[in-house]
Amino acid sequence: MKTKLDINCDVGESYGAFHVGNDSSVMTNITSANIACGFHGGDPLTISKTVNLAKEKGIAIGAHPGFPDIMGFGRRNMLLASEEVYSYVIYQIGALNEFAHIIGVNLQHVKPHGSMYNMAAKDSTLAENITRAIRAIDKQLIVFAPPNSALASAAKKSGLRVACEIFADRTYNSDGSLVSRSRPNAIINEPKEVVKRAVKMVEEKAVMSIDGRMVDFGDVHTICVHGDTLGAVKLTASLKKGLVKAGVNVESVGKFI
Amino acid sequence: MKTKLDINCDVGESYGAFHVGNDSSVMTNITSANIACGFHGGDPLTISKTVNLAKEKGIAIGAHPGFPDIMGFGRRNMLLASEEVYSYVIYQIGALNEFAHIIGVNLQHVKPHGSMYNMAAKDSTLAENITRAIRAIDKQLIVFAPPNSALASAAKKSGLRVACEIFADRTYNSDGSLVSRSRPNAIINEPKEVVKRAVKMVEEKAVMSIDGRMVDFGDVHTICVHGDTLGAVKLTASLKKGLVKAGVNVESVGKFI
Amino acid sequence: MKTKLDINCDVGESYGAFHVGNDSSVMTNITSANIACGFHGGDPLTISKTVNLAKEKGIAIGAHPGFPDIMGFGRRNMLLASEEVYSYVIYQIGALNEFAHIIGVNLQHVKPHGSMYNMAAKDSTLAENITRAIRAIDKQLIVFAPPNSALASAAKKSGLRVACEIFADRTYNSDGSLVSRSRPNAIINEPKEVVKRAVKMVEEKAVMSIDGRMVDFGDVHTICVHGDTLGAVKLTASLKKGLVKAGVNVESVGKFI
Amino acid sequence: MKTKLDINCDVGESYGAFHVGNDSSVMTNITSANIACGFHGGDPLTISKTVNLAKEKGIAIGAHPGFPDIMGFGRRNMLLASEEVYSYVIYQIGALNEFAHIIGVNLQHVKPHGSMYNMAAKDSTLAENITRAIRAIDKQLIVFAPPNSALASAAKKSGLRVACEIFADRTYNSDGSLVSRSRPNAIINEPKEVVKRAVKMVEEKAVMSIDGRMVDFGDVHTICVHGDTLGAVKLTASLKKGLVKAGVNVESVGKFI
Repeated sequence: MKTKLDINCDVGESYGAFHVGNDSSVMTNITSANIACGFHGGDPLTISKTVNLAKEKGIAIGAHPGFPDIMGFGRRNMLLASEEVYSYVIYQIGALNEFAHIIGVNLQHVKPHGSMYNMAAKDSTLAENITRAIRAIDKQLIVFAPPNSALASAAKKSGLRVACEIFADRTYNSDGSLVSRSRPNAIINEPKEVVKRAVKMVEEKAVMSIDGRMVDFGDVHTICVHGDTLGAVKLTASLKKGLVKAGVNVESVGKFI
Repeated sequence: MKTKLDINCDVGESYGAFHVGNDSSVMTNITSANIACGFHGGDPLTISKTVNLAKEKGIAIGAHPGFPDIMGFGRRNMLLASEEVYSYVIYQIGALNEFAHIIGVNLQHVKPHGSMYNMAAKDSTLAENITRAIRAIDKQLIVFAPPNSALASAAKKSGLRVACEIFADRTYNSDGSLVSRSRPNAIINEPKEVVKRAVKMVEEKAVMSIDGRMVDFGDVHTICVHGDTLGAVKLTASLKKGLVKAGVNVESVGKFI
Repeated sequence: MKTKLDINCDVGESYGAFHVGNDSSVMTNITSANIACGFHGGDPLTISKTVNLAKEKGIAIGAHPGFPDIMGFGRRNMLLASEEVYSYVIYQIGALNEFAHIIGVNLQHVKPHGSMYNMAAKDSTLAENITRAIRAIDKQLIVFAPPNSALASAAKKSGLRVACEIFADRTYNSDGSLVSRSRPNAIINEPKEVVKRAVKMVEEKAVMSIDGRMVDFGDVHTICVHGDTLGAVKLTASLKKGLVKAGVNVESVGKFI
Repeated sequence: MKTKLDINCDVGESYGAFHVGNDSSVMTNITSANIACGFHGGDPLTISKTVNLAKEKGIAIGAHPGFPDIMGFGRRNMLLASEEVYSYVIYQIGALNEFAHIIGVNLQHVKPHGSMYNMAAKDSTLAENITRAIRAIDKQLIVFAPPNSALASAAKKSGLRVACEIFADRTYNSDGSLVSRSRPNAIINEPKEVVKRAVKMVEEKAVMSIDGRMVDFGDVHTICVHGDTLGAVKLTASLKKGLVKAGVNVESVGKFI
């Protein structure tokens, strides 16, 4: 059987007049769009435009809920009570869901944003509160989570499907976490290298950490690209081409998971 | 046939630690709850608690969307673009809808909040954008609107049912609008007078304006009480008793409209 | 020499229509007011009214900066970058300072709010960023800090005066931190007990922890009362009377530190 | 005597991770920077960086206060109470003032942002509330206002100096207002035309409206350029060169008004 892979990207993160990313271009070469839901970016009008755009491009959509922190773009750790997390996730997915319903598409997945994603990778209570909210909304929703993470465990435990997500333009620590952006070797900028690395990660279901150890991923389902950099559009196109050339079927995760 | 009337109140307007109203008490004597959706009040956790409370009390719920203005509690006029209004209303109702879905209740109605309500009473473009959003979500939703208002017209025109709403503790101008709170004769504080007035307004389908002219309402479906004043709980109880005593059937508007 | 003590209270925490506390009443019996600066509460109009009120009552004022989190009232831990903390503190104190300047009073002190205060008690980097901002604004500002805290150390190190603050209605752990509000024995509700405890803490410069160990405070300069509870006004009056009766000089900390 | 002119630009309008404009480049060719103060853009860290940048470039700074509307970037009309406007302006200028004080520069001027500016051009009550706040802070502050506007009148009446501001890349209506951006002939894109037009407007103290009538400006003191478009940096450089070539002294308005 051919290897299958989804390419996802965070989109719809503009906020009113504050413009983020090149959504229309980047969405041409991805298969799943993670749509911001208003708490870290993504005002309602942007949500509306982005869902319409995704429908037009024929790609799957997912909710991208974050911490309530516009000023920090959801990238700052916040310690919320369990019921706060639970209700914030419902609120955000619910708002997006209504647009999806009106525009005539279904949510495929949920990928927590920024610090919510990073914290939920390690904090099982947070992960459990997020997945409890997702499950209450729709048992068919797929959860995007890092390999071997608390988020993946919590989602599986609650009966939700999990898409294992990797990053091709980032390096990994031996514990499977991403090397912090503040470190010099965190990001791989060379497009060819990124594509080569992506193909290898998918085939080997593992990556070499910066300390020289193999990190096992298990099955990999989706690969994340970043849309807010100048080279993003080109990189995404190269990545898709490279994967296809390597014999990988690039399609929305909902079709094969 | 007996006269029927719904009693509605704005609830769930607390915002995190900022506490507003005596929701639990006031909800004992009303039949429809207008639940704030996060833009002027009503954080997600408050929404969750309020929908649960309404279910427990066995009363109908509706969305109470407002302008995006926490600092001004949605009481300040804002000039928004048509697509902004449309998407803000969808976002807010959608978020509430998800909680309703999870908790196992259905939305009965939508009542715009504060300045959005007051402006939509006169501004037909604003009214049309609001009702367009409501209709896109669910054709069964009832729109709460002042008698003879642009909001009522727009809702009817789009095929939505309209509940004509009156205020028993407020005086009216000859054009059917409420006398501004900034004027001394705007509010009726005496509970007995409020109840008497309510019964009369419902029976006569009209009210005497402060200038001595009769303002015709047509059929009246719902009467609004305010939950954030100290006497609110008592007044609401008195109002319900007074209406029942006068032979009015007090029940949720969705049951008889 | 007579023992001297300041009584401080958090005030001006209303946010637009969201009303918090009984500022006018509670400010009658305190000597220092910690005024919210807009990030966790305290919209500009509330700041203006509160500074005027403090001037009228003849009490000292201080800035009460918090994390940017209206929905969480500044009570949720946030991990901010050093330069974010530094600039957020300057922004908030600066805004308040302008009102003080216009109204004709001077800032006496700064007391971080909620989670910023609690985190700075233990996190020396956070404490250093806060005090660096305060020092840049005005070297005469007094920093309110818990006994033996990282905040107290950072303030002293930077050459600022520190007012050691205690809480008479809260119990203490052996490490000098307050017992969490989530625990049953955290709060002392009986007014007489609070007053007795306050006098004892000031005289003995120490308190018995819930584990039965003495926690040394060193010199105590200010005692905090809470203004947002129903009994706050009465308690504050009792506390002032009780302290005076016990021979304590109750006055603004700027007069004796 | 040589004609003198100030070139101003709105800067520091980024908000956390939401990046706006090319501040560093555009500030090379202007003489006055209008710095956003946090209500429509301009988080505290951005303010800090922008004031430092202005100091480095040796240009004058001013406050650029706006309506409290991050989602709308302060470009939506809001009806605020007089005391709200007054306190919001003080709050914003005060916050900026503290950074200026710490960094060692003085505020030269105040220019209201977006809808606050446009509304104050016509609404004398709003204009009066803004200028009352500015005057309370510092009588030396210069107010940037459109020619013949309510804002100019209110500022003059309160004893403040007024810098008459024109826009070289925008067309004018016969009543002196700018042609709305929604109309096709509102914006002049051709750099040469903009420069030619600017020189003419300054020399003639007037402009030809789109209806073919002369609009008299009286003395013109400052010309506004926009920094958030791709050609902004080039246009600003061309404008400065063009003005100098035409014999105009380009310098900060505080030096010659």
